[in-house]
Amino acid sequence: MQKGKETKMAILKAGLAMASQLGLDGVNIGSLAKAMNMSKSGLFAHFQSKENLQIEILEHAARVFAESVIVPASKTAPGIPRIKALVSNWIDWSAQLTGGRIFVSPSADYRDRPGRVREYLLRQQNDSIDCLRRVAQLAIKTGEFREDADCEQFAFDLYSLLLGFHLYDKLLDDSETKKRQEQALKQLVANYKQ
Amino acid sequence: MQKGKETKMAILKAGLAMASQLGLDGVNIGSLAKAMNMSKSGLFAHFQSKENLQIEILEHAARVFAESVIVPASKTAPGIPRIKALVSNWIDWSAQLTGGRIFVSPSADYRDRPGRVREYLLRQQNDSIDCLRRVAQLAIKTGEFREDADCEQFAFDLYSLLLGFHLYDKLLDDSETKKRQEQALKQLVANYKQ
Repeated sequence: MQKGKETKMAILKAGLAMASQLGLDGVNIGSLAKAMNMSKSGLFAHFQSKENLQIEILEHAARVFAESVIVPASKTAPGIPRIKALVSNWIDWSAQLTGGRIFVSPSADYRDRPGRVREYLLRQQNDSIDCLRRVAQLAIKTGEFREDADCEQFAFDLYSLLLGFHLYDKLLDDSETKKRQEQALKQLVANYKQ
Repeated sequence: MQKGKETKMAILKAGLAMASQLGLDGVNIGSLAKAMNMSKSGLFAHFQSKENLQIEILEHAARVFAESVIVPASKTAPGIPRIKALVSNWIDWSAQLTGGRIFVSPSADYRDRPGRVREYLLRQQNDSIDCLRRVAQLAIKTGEFREDADCEQFAFDLYSLLLGFHLYDKLLDDSETKKRQEQALKQLVANYKQ
């Protein structure tokens, strides 16, 4: 049983690396079995379908995301320091192989393809946006943001900034990207401050 | 010859529709030939390779983008009115099937895959960012933006906003997305104004 769990986790790790390279659609049981030196039927026994495999890869990515981004940020002081920590962790995650590629591109790719993968991605994106809204609410509580600051708007603004960073960084290889992102965050926080 | 051109244009239109549904990677000569009721060899004669086909689809998308977004905006008054027109046209384009999907997702997907498709996407994204920088420079000239407004930063901020809109609109089906985007644009322009 323990052995089975370990094997499954190793498959999910390899699957996440593969999804980062080829996109979620590029992962299939055949190619993953080959990469893992397993038989197709041996790997199939763990997941039963490509859809299950894709969802378990996304769940694995979400766990890594939570551990690398959300949990460390939640240990910092609420308010602006927590917002900054969240952005900084998010960007580090995005700069890694698995960042963005694993949630952002599939989100666009699955836009018109109903099913469990799309539902999972939808929920995951909504959770991310909720998280951004909550850090803004905390910044109102600490008195750093204005009482009437629009936290839904803040979530949109900050999510946009993170996507902008992701695309500049991933595609354009712009050495100034970090500076741009820092300036944008500074202005964003200023827009909501007391 | 005329007939050949017409056929090729019809293939590119169908290819763009297919890329909008399945992503650029989902387009291949076999499936496109089937959709066009042509033989594979007949279609192959027009493009010679999948890479050529993909690049010609991207070029076709870029022409549609220029005609729907850039050209009409360039006919409006320079400065803030032109920025607003550009955003409005861009969003209309993004809301269509072909928007974003055709440039944004492939841009992430081809991040680590050197070749002509990646080079084309890189150039295309850089052109878009140049365009955003230029409208900000014009807004300085009309006296609407501050003399020392950072046009590179404006391009990053506005590009982020457009990506944010794209993802909210495409994935989250958020009925408030339009309102969020309008509020974000209003704040963005205010940040750079005299």
